[in-house]
Amino acid sequence: MTDVDVVVVGAGLAGLSAARKLVAAGKTVRILEARDRVAGRNFGGSLNNGVAVELGGQWVGPGQDTVLALIDELGLETFPTYDAGDALTVFDGQKIRYSDATFGLPVESLAEIARVWGQLEMLAASVPLEAPWQAESAAEWDRQTFDDWLSANTTDNLALRFFRVVMPTLFCAETPEVSLLHLLFYVRAGNGLASMLAVTGGAQELRVVGGTHRISERMATELGNRVQLGAVVRTISQTNSAVTVTYENHDGTETGTVTARNVIVAIPPTLAGRIRYLPPLPSARDSLTQQFPAGSVIKFQIGYPTPFWRDAGLSGFVTSLDDAFNVVLDNSPCDGSCGVLVGFLDGAHAREAAQLSTQERHKLVLDALVKYFGPQAGEPFDILEKDWSAEEFTRGCYGGRLAAGALTHFGKALAEPVGRIHWAGAETAQQWSGYMDGAITSGRRAASEILDTV
Amino acid sequence: MTDVDVVVVGAGLAGLSAARKLVAAGKTVRILEARDRVAGRNFGGSLNNGVAVELGGQWVGPGQDTVLALIDELGLETFPTYDAGDALTVFDGQKIRYSDATFGLPVESLAEIARVWGQLEMLAASVPLEAPWQAESAAEWDRQTFDDWLSANTTDNLALRFFRVVMPTLFCAETPEVSLLHLLFYVRAGNGLASMLAVTGGAQELRVVGGTHRISERMATELGNRVQLGAVVRTISQTNSAVTVTYENHDGTETGTVTARNVIVAIPPTLAGRIRYLPPLPSARDSLTQQFPAGSVIKFQIGYPTPFWRDAGLSGFVTSLDDAFNVVLDNSPCDGSCGVLVGFLDGAHAREAAQLSTQERHKLVLDALVKYFGPQAGEPFDILEKDWSAEEFTRGCYGGRLAAGALTHFGKALAEPVGRIHWAGAETAQQWSGYMDGAITSGRRAASEILDTV
Repeated sequence: MTDVDVVVVGAGLAGLSAARKLVAAGKTVRILEARDRVAGRNFGGSLNNGVAVELGGQWVGPGQDTVLALIDELGLETFPTYDAGDALTVFDGQKIRYSDATFGLPVESLAEIARVWGQLEMLAASVPLEAPWQAESAAEWDRQTFDDWLSANTTDNLALRFFRVVMPTLFCAETPEVSLLHLLFYVRAGNGLASMLAVTGGAQELRVVGGTHRISERMATELGNRVQLGAVVRTISQTNSAVTVTYENHDGTETGTVTARNVIVAIPPTLAGRIRYLPPLPSARDSLTQQFPAGSVIKFQIGYPTPFWRDAGLSGFVTSLDDAFNVVLDNSPCDGSCGVLVGFLDGAHAREAAQLSTQERHKLVLDALVKYFGPQAGEPFDILEKDWSAEEFTRGCYGGRLAAGALTHFGKALAEPVGRIHWAGAETAQQWSGYMDGAITSGRRAASEILDTV
Repeated sequence: MTDVDVVVVGAGLAGLSAARKLVAAGKTVRILEARDRVAGRNFGGSLNNGVAVELGGQWVGPGQDTVLALIDELGLETFPTYDAGDALTVFDGQKIRYSDATFGLPVESLAEIARVWGQLEMLAASVPLEAPWQAESAAEWDRQTFDDWLSANTTDNLALRFFRVVMPTLFCAETPEVSLLHLLFYVRAGNGLASMLAVTGGAQELRVVGGTHRISERMATELGNRVQLGAVVRTISQTNSAVTVTYENHDGTETGTVTARNVIVAIPPTLAGRIRYLPPLPSARDSLTQQFPAGSVIKFQIGYPTPFWRDAGLSGFVTSLDDAFNVVLDNSPCDGSCGVLVGFLDGAHAREAAQLSTQERHKLVLDALVKYFGPQAGEPFDILEKDWSAEEFTRGCYGGRLAAGALTHFGKALAEPVGRIHWAGAETAQQWSGYMDGAITSGRRAASEILDTV
C-alpha cells in the first residue's frame, strides 16, 4: 500500500493539470511544490498602487485552445492586450512609427526578412512534433546553430539584426545558443513564427484578468490539501511496485516522504536533473538534463499614472535593434486605471544587466523608455523586476533550449517515462512547447500515461 | 567551532590534492566521497587474467610537470606507452600503414590538415588561460561552434573528416557541440594540439605502473580516515562564519553533516550543479552548471594472449575515419605478459552504442579490431568496458564542454569562489584543463584560496 496513487512534483500549470486529471479519474494525488506558492513560471505581482501585473508568463492567444478552454472552465476572463495605434521600431538611431506589418524597416530589408522568415516557416513545417529528431533533415539541422543558418541565408545587415533581436524573445538566449532543429521544432509547435510574434491574432493577443497565475490558483483551490507547499523534492526512489519521494523544507531542516504508485515530475528539465533518482536514470536522460539550460530574462513592469503613450497615438509596442531593453508592450490594466509598460532584458542583455545594481538597471530601462516615449516615460510611480535565473526553483525563463547536437541524440529522453517516473512541463509539450498551453497538455499527457496503464 | 577547517567534496585527484595541501599547512580536513572508492574519473580494473587496466584516464606526458612530479613523490613509476612500428589509418575502405607524421593520408589532404591545424594553434595561442572570455576575439569565437569554424576553413573532405574524428577524442562530443572559444582554450591549456594528440612526445606518452588510480589511492592512504567514502553530498549551507555540508549514504537511508570554515567542491560542474546550496548560488554560476555537459564515451580494454600486432610490425595505434570504434592504442602491461588494446567509442558513437546490448556492442568493437588487425583480434580472452555517462557519480567523461555562447557569458563563474565555497576539478584548471595534471593544480589552487585568506 502506498500513501497515494500518484505524487506530482511541481505545482505549476503542468503539475496541477496532471493532478486535476488524475483526481477526476478517481486517483489519490499529492502535489509537492518547493515554493510557498503555486503557479511556477506564472507569478503575480502588484504595483504599489495595487494594480496586478504578471511577473512571469502572461499572454495567451488564438490556437492555444487548451489554455483558453481552461481559463473559461475555471471562470476566469481574458481581455485583449492593448494594440491600437502605431508601433515603434528603433534602429541606427532612428525611431520609426508604423501601423502595418512592415516593422518600420526599409523595404529592401523587409523583403529580405520576409524571404528568410518564409524559408524558416517552410523548414519548420516539415518537423514532426512527436519526434523532431526524425525530421528528414534532422541531422543536418541539428548540426547548425540558428545563427549558422541565419548567416548562411542572408547577408542583409538589418535582417540579421532583426532576427538576432527577435529570436532571443522566444528562447531568452542568443542565436548561436540554439540548435536550428530545436528552433524549427519550437516554431512549428507554436503554429509558426507569425503567430508566435504577433499581438492581435497571435500569442500575445489576450491577457487574463487578474493575471495568469490565477489559472494555477484556481486549480490549486480545487485540489485543496492535496497541494503541499514548501516541499523541495530531493530524491525519487522506485522499485518494481512503488515510488518513494523524499522532500525537505526550504532551509533543509525537516524532511518527509510520500509513497505512491507513480510520480510525475512537472518541473523544468534543468531542475528535474538535480533530483537524485534511485536507481540512477538512464544515461540518455541524464545527458539531456545536463544540457537543457533555461533562458536568461529579467522582466520589468513599469507603472505610470496614465498610459500617456496612447495619447500620442502609440500602441506601446517597441522593437529596438539598438538597445538592450528592446521589446516593450502596453500592459495597462483593462480598466485603464493607470498605465503600465512591460518589457524585457533577454539573453546576453539579461546576463549583463544582472551584474548591475538595481539602480543602474532601472536607469538602463528608463533611459530606453524615455528614448522611445519621451520624458514622461522617465517618471514611473513604480518599477517591478524579476530575474528568473536567480530564482532557486525556476533558474531561468521562459523555458529550456537545446544547443546544436543535443536534440537528435537525447530528445527522445525528454518525455519518455522511466519506469514509474513520468515527465511533464512546458518543455515536454508537442504543441505550444514552452508555452502555458503546452504546459497544460503536457501534464494531461503524463496523467494519461498513468491512467492508460492502470 | 566547526568540526573541521575544510570539507572537500570529491576524492578524485582534485579533491585529494586540495586536502593534501591543506593538511600539510596544518588544517583539519574531511573529504566526502560519494563512491566506495577514491580516484573519480581514474578507475582501475583488471582483466580476468589479473592484469591491471585503466578504465578511466590513463596517460600522462611531457609538459604535465605537476602530475609527473606527484607520481614520483608518491613512489609510483611510469613506463612508456608502446609506440614502435607502424600505425594504421582507415578511410574509404583503405587501410594505410604509416610510421611518420602523415597519418597515412594523401599528401593534398595532409597539407590541408597541416594548414588548418596551424591556423587553430595560432588562434589558440592568443587565448588568455586565466580568462579566455577576455581574448580579443572571444565574442566572435564563442559565437561559433568548432564545426562552423572548421567548415568555413576547409573544403577538403578528408581534412573535415579527420578533424571530426580527432576532436571528439578530446571532448567526447561532436564538433558542433563545442564552442570554438572553448576548444581554443582547451588546446592552449594542453600545450597545443600536437602535444595533446601525440603518443611519444605527447599526452599519451606515459602510463603509470598499476594504473593511474594509484595516484589517488596513495594520497588517500596518507590522508587516512579524513577520507569518508559512501558520502553523497546533497546540500551545502553557508553563513557568514561557517559552512554545513549534508550528505547521505548510497540508498539515501542515512544522513550526516559536517561543519567547516570552508568547503571545496571538487567534482565536475554538471554534478556540482545538483547539490543544493543555501543560500542559492548566484545566477551566473547556476546558469553555467546548467550547460556544462560531460562527454559521452565508452572505454574498452580488450585482452589477448599476446600483443600479436607487434609481430606484424604494428604499433597498435589506429585512427579510422570509417568506423565507430575509431581510436585504438596498444595498452599491454609493461611486462608484456599479455596483449591489451584500448579503444573508445566517443561522442555520437558512444550514444548510439549505449543503446545496444553488451553483446552487440562487443561485436561492433571486435569487428572493427578484426578489420584493423586480422582474425586474431576477434579472439580476445576478455573485454572490459566502461560507459562513464551511466555512472551516477561522474555522468560523463573525459570532461565537460561548453557549447557556443556559454564561455563568454558564464566562464568567469567556473572557478570564482562564492563566499566560503571554492571550486576545483579538472574543468576549472588553466593548464591542462580536463587532464589529470589540471585536476591536481585545480585542487591546490582551491586550497591556496583558503590558505591565503586565513
